[in-house]
Amino acid sequence: MKLINFLHQNSEKYGILKPTGVIDLKKLMGDEYPSLLSLLQGNALSIARDYQNNATDISLDQIIYLPVINNPKKIICAGMNYADKRIEFNESNPAPTLFVRFADSQTGHNNPVLKPENTAEFDYEGELAVIMGRPCFHVSAADALNYVAGYSCYMDGSVRDWQHSWYTAGKNWPSTGAFGPNLTTCDEIPDPQVLNLRTLLNGRVVQSDNTANMIHRVADLIAYISTFTPLSAGDVILTGSPGGVGKKHVPPLFLQPGDVIEVEIECIGRLTNTVSEVRLIDEVKTVA
Amino acid sequence: MKLINFLHQNSEKYGILKPTGVIDLKKLMGDEYPSLLSLLQGNALSIARDYQNNATDISLDQIIYLPVINNPKKIICAGMNYADKRIEFNESNPAPTLFVRFADSQTGHNNPVLKPENTAEFDYEGELAVIMGRPCFHVSAADALNYVAGYSCYMDGSVRDWQHSWYTAGKNWPSTGAFGPNLTTCDEIPDPQVLNLRTLLNGRVVQSDNTANMIHRVADLIAYISTFTPLSAGDVILTGSPGGVGKKHVPPLFLQPGDVIEVEIECIGRLTNTVSEVRLIDEVKTVA
Repeated sequence: MKLINFLHQNSEKYGILKPTGVIDLKKLMGDEYPSLLSLLQGNALSIARDYQNNATDISLDQIIYLPVINNPKKIICAGMNYADKRIEFNESNPAPTLFVRFADSQTGHNNPVLKPENTAEFDYEGELAVIMGRPCFHVSAADALNYVAGYSCYMDGSVRDWQHSWYTAGKNWPSTGAFGPNLTTCDEIPDPQVLNLRTLLNGRVVQSDNTANMIHRVADLIAYISTFTPLSAGDVILTGSPGGVGKKHVPPLFLQPGDVIEVEIECIGRLTNTVSEVRLIDEVKTVA
Repeated sequence: MKLINFLHQNSEKYGILKPTGVIDLKKLMGDEYPSLLSLLQGNALSIARDYQNNATDISLDQIIYLPVINNPKKIICAGMNYADKRIEFNESNPAPTLFVRFADSQTGHNNPVLKPENTAEFDYEGELAVIMGRPCFHVSAADALNYVAGYSCYMDGSVRDWQHSWYTAGKNWPSTGAFGPNLTTCDEIPDPQVLNLRTLLNGRVVQSDNTANMIHRVADLIAYISTFTPLSAGDVILTGSPGGVGKKHVPPLFLQPGDVIEVEIECIGRLTNTVSEVRLIDEVKTVA
């Protein structure tokens, strides 16, 4: 089952994505589950499944995609988690390196991602996103995947010249984290470590790897993270990007206004966004 | 005016702290401002001020302190922001180094801070906390302090052996971030860069500095942060810790169960917490 979060006639809705349109779960599930997040919090995916053979309610040209989870409490991002990426960035630390993205830095499929005008190094990172389905704390790696609701694509847009030694400032600009198009439930992805992942810039493949090459696998990341912080339904874990980011191309391949950036993951789909430049107002302080 | 957030008879309240007790603002302000956060969001500090000469409603021995802001959307922490600390940690990066603490890692004044049993390096960091009073984005340093509601003490408890190269995993264990006792409004602190700050471990002074020695001053941090991410009322900025953290003492001076750790800042007050050890359940994975 593929779930999406979207705007329709200026109203936030969610539903089951079909090739011909969307089954409107907000209408079907009623007030108890007004949002995709509330559906996960209520552990009610199985109820939604009862509707998956319904006729579609809304055609795809009538919707505006929202981030798969609009307002997760926690978005925890693993850096340097593919072998090739670690070589490119000379990373040797064996433990997961984690940073945080705020929910208000996200955007949805088919929406613009915003390049701040004051960066010359706006970079792409295609990633597998994990969406938690149930709360967990101190979960073992063996048990961890049982707490996952599903998976999605993520374009972890990175303002490299603001990353400095830690990544917070480079990873939290508005509309730089594209999340979608859909949450693909675990029944369609029993093993998240066998998925081909590609990033395409204006149709050219710029990253291509398989999730088999993650250093810390999804289950290990969940076990590690849940050791120090509780996870809730709807929380998101970004699992890191393969090698081939723009900064490491020769010459570098940074995102420019008008570029089309896409992240495609096997069994999930393809996330597409066009780059727009956003002007900062005059008093913005440049980096010290 | 000194504002606190607390439990009284199992109910969450907030009020004005006086030497003799608390003026119950929740009762006085009514349904429009049910919490300290909503008071800030409503830009209603001036209304609260009308009650500051009222008689107190609740004695201090009847309250349990909560974190000054229970559930901020963003807690952004500056690392390596005092000259001595930078020398101790060989930090040379000129830009602010930022990490994120999640709201559920916090605790209040007089509550235990929890040392995870699987760390041998649970460390203290005494810091000045800035609480935002109004939303801002792209604010200049010259204007930044106009968006601050007030200041507090923070004990940014740090699990050093989980910090790895980035700090997320070392800074987000439950009940490791003590925040209080109170929010002291800006009229009592017109200049946040002239405050003596001390950390005391079992009554012994282990950190002692003045906020004049911050590398990036409060106004500069707000300007820098608000360049890449919008700030809201109730958001918290931690401004970094002076030198003298436990890891850099010879021999190291890590926190042990039963220790009393205190952070005292001029014009604000003294935040006191006792260290307790928390057992992790058996299946917790140790660090790779």
